[in-house]
Amino acid sequence: MAGPEWESLEQCLEKHLQPADLREVKRVLYGKETRKLDLPSRAFEFASERDFELQGYAFEAAEEQLRRPRTVRVGLVQNRTPLPADAPVAKQSLVPMLVPPWATTIGGLFILVPAMPFAFCTREKLPWTEFAESAEDGPTTRFCQKLAKKHDMVVVSPILERDGEHGDVLWNTAVVISNSGAVLGKTRKNHIPRVGDFNESTYYMEGNLGHPVFQTQFGRIAVNICYGRHHPLNWLMYSINGAEIIFNPSATIGALSESMWPVEARNAAIANHCFTCAINRVGKEHFPNEFTSGDGKKAHHDFGYFYGSSYVAAPDSSRTPGLSRNREGLLVAELNLNLCRQINDIWNFKMTGRYEMYARELAEAVKPNYSPNIVKE
Amino acid sequence: MAGPEWESLEQCLEKHLQPADLREVKRVLYGKETRKLDLPSRAFEFASERDFELQGYAFEAAEEQLRRPRTVRVGLVQNRTPLPADAPVAKQSLVPMLVPPWATTIGGLFILVPAMPFAFCTREKLPWTEFAESAEDGPTTRFCQKLAKKHDMVVVSPILERDGEHGDVLWNTAVVISNSGAVLGKTRKNHIPRVGDFNESTYYMEGNLGHPVFQTQFGRIAVNICYGRHHPLNWLMYSINGAEIIFNPSATIGALSESMWPVEARNAAIANHCFTCAINRVGKEHFPNEFTSGDGKKAHHDFGYFYGSSYVAAPDSSRTPGLSRNREGLLVAELNLNLCRQINDIWNFKMTGRYEMYARELAEAVKPNYSPNIVKE
Repeated sequence: MAGPEWESLEQCLEKHLQPADLREVKRVLYGKETRKLDLPSRAFEFASERDFELQGYAFEAAEEQLRRPRTVRVGLVQNRTPLPADAPVAKQSLVPMLVPPWATTIGGLFILVPAMPFAFCTREKLPWTEFAESAEDGPTTRFCQKLAKKHDMVVVSPILERDGEHGDVLWNTAVVISNSGAVLGKTRKNHIPRVGDFNESTYYMEGNLGHPVFQTQFGRIAVNICYGRHHPLNWLMYSINGAEIIFNPSATIGALSESMWPVEARNAAIANHCFTCAINRVGKEHFPNEFTSGDGKKAHHDFGYFYGSSYVAAPDSSRTPGLSRNREGLLVAELNLNLCRQINDIWNFKMTGRYEMYARELAEAVKPNYSPNIVKE
Repeated sequence: MAGPEWESLEQCLEKHLQPADLREVKRVLYGKETRKLDLPSRAFEFASERDFELQGYAFEAAEEQLRRPRTVRVGLVQNRTPLPADAPVAKQSLVPMLVPPWATTIGGLFILVPAMPFAFCTREKLPWTEFAESAEDGPTTRFCQKLAKKHDMVVVSPILERDGEHGDVLWNTAVVISNSGAVLGKTRKNHIPRVGDFNESTYYMEGNLGHPVFQTQFGRIAVNICYGRHHPLNWLMYSINGAEIIFNPSATIGALSESMWPVEARNAAIANHCFTCAINRVGKEHFPNEFTSGDGKKAHHDFGYFYGSSYVAAPDSSRTPGLSRNREGLLVAELNLNLCRQINDIWNFKMTGRYEMYARELAEAVKPNYSPNIVKE
């Protein structure tokens, strides 16, 4: 298996296929073509100076008589943790400071990936639990509030939350900050993995905030955190609550999930008539103490490489190409949110969804004495 | 947009990519490689004589100490309606007779695609409602019973059902026939489309049989009929009831759904730790009377082309290549059903699924006075 040196599916296809074939391959794989976005040349200059990839695409919708186009921009940050995992905690916490200049290239919604290394593979408590902070007024939130106000942007900021009001427990949380600079609210990771080295259940429990949707100036948004993308019901409830864009900030590695990555957030956009934004980090994180991975192999210091490939998927089953598998990047997407309702009215998955039947069937299925509907000869 | 003359994504990639790149592209797109199956040369000779495509792949699982491999074979038939839509109804109903010789190449489970043209685009009642027949003892069921017994196969047979016991109503039904030749039971289409020319709601209503799973000698199977593939909850309930293989017999066309096709059944296999079999027909069906398509365009006689591309997806996110977009074909897949529980134990989506929360949230959400969880500034 190739490591992170293989840049991306898209690069490979663009390089080797003739235009006519490339068009068909992309149509089958990515649906209706997304328009390339005109971003200012200074944005590309900045990207080149700082050695990150910058891509922009626009999703369009049909004209309507009674509604104007509802065009918003989202910026997805695909980063690597810039300091080694054994750097002092306080220094690593400041890493989001590196992000603001990128922000000037967009406007609208902006999603950060946390600066914390993905240390849950170690199962060590200190120093990693020191990254935990208050969602309401921790340093990352305060930093993002300034950022949001300065650039007139909504910021989504995933953090490790320490809940001082409730026994000092930890949560995996995303804080949503309005473009006014106010903390609009927070949402917590609903599904916690027990797979591979994702030992998160050692640190925090399933979220207790349900499926909140945030009404922002740039549309109604929700955050389906990381492993929650494997659960179609999680996407569905955000959508039922009205989300037009669902962000999926993730940290996931090549050996485990790469062939699921293009499928899940994309399926969610289709099934729920909304936009989804799948964001992964890049790079490899090295930890000071060795750990094992429950796979019979020798102890080691690496978690594996994050394969990037961040993308945006639309309700009409189109999607952007992915960012690369190995470089930091910013993916800017212009979304006409009118597309959500237009596709809803074409495909009618909510209308034909029969949620009453499923509420009833699920309520039965969770009973300890449930007897599955199995037909035998 | 290319029509059906562009054979397939896989053919194009195989032709133009070098082996090293092809391997990576397939890994990202299709996961772990599936082994090619050794099928007897007489099967290929027969396929060549009858001008259909024959492909075979095997999905493997880890060895276990307490369970033997549970290896079964499924055969997916990708066909075109061999007679013109205006041929006499009685003649068209006999079309499944063309299928049996193919069956000898497999063993295990076998899925037919109905011989009836997809006439729901016309909204005409006669002659199309004459295709409707009893699930228990209609001619197609009787034919399939002989087929099943003769070849020691379970047969899944999608039909247009006439329900004589309940006011002569019609249903979109799949009949499951045991390898003993007995009718094991039936399952009905749970979600009915109102999209494009899929005017099925003119003919039949949402199924009333819930989510039955059939215990066969070759594993526990379920049938998610056609448009039901867009509904993640439909797949989920079959899986909760214990399905190890879920068939999705479909009839869907290029302009509408081709970029959704590789995503949905695949996502369902991943999300539910089961195998899914996505089956589409090929060809173009021409109807005697012109009809319009609710898109402002002129009346016409064609429904559009069915793009084939049938495939099998596995719980580990691997999948077979698709059959072609334009030829009839038989896709044989050997499945080690032990893989379902193995992947379940690795990824734990059922354990982490929180269905109790969703049962509660959905029950609330369907109430007429439901107030969505929206956070405002």
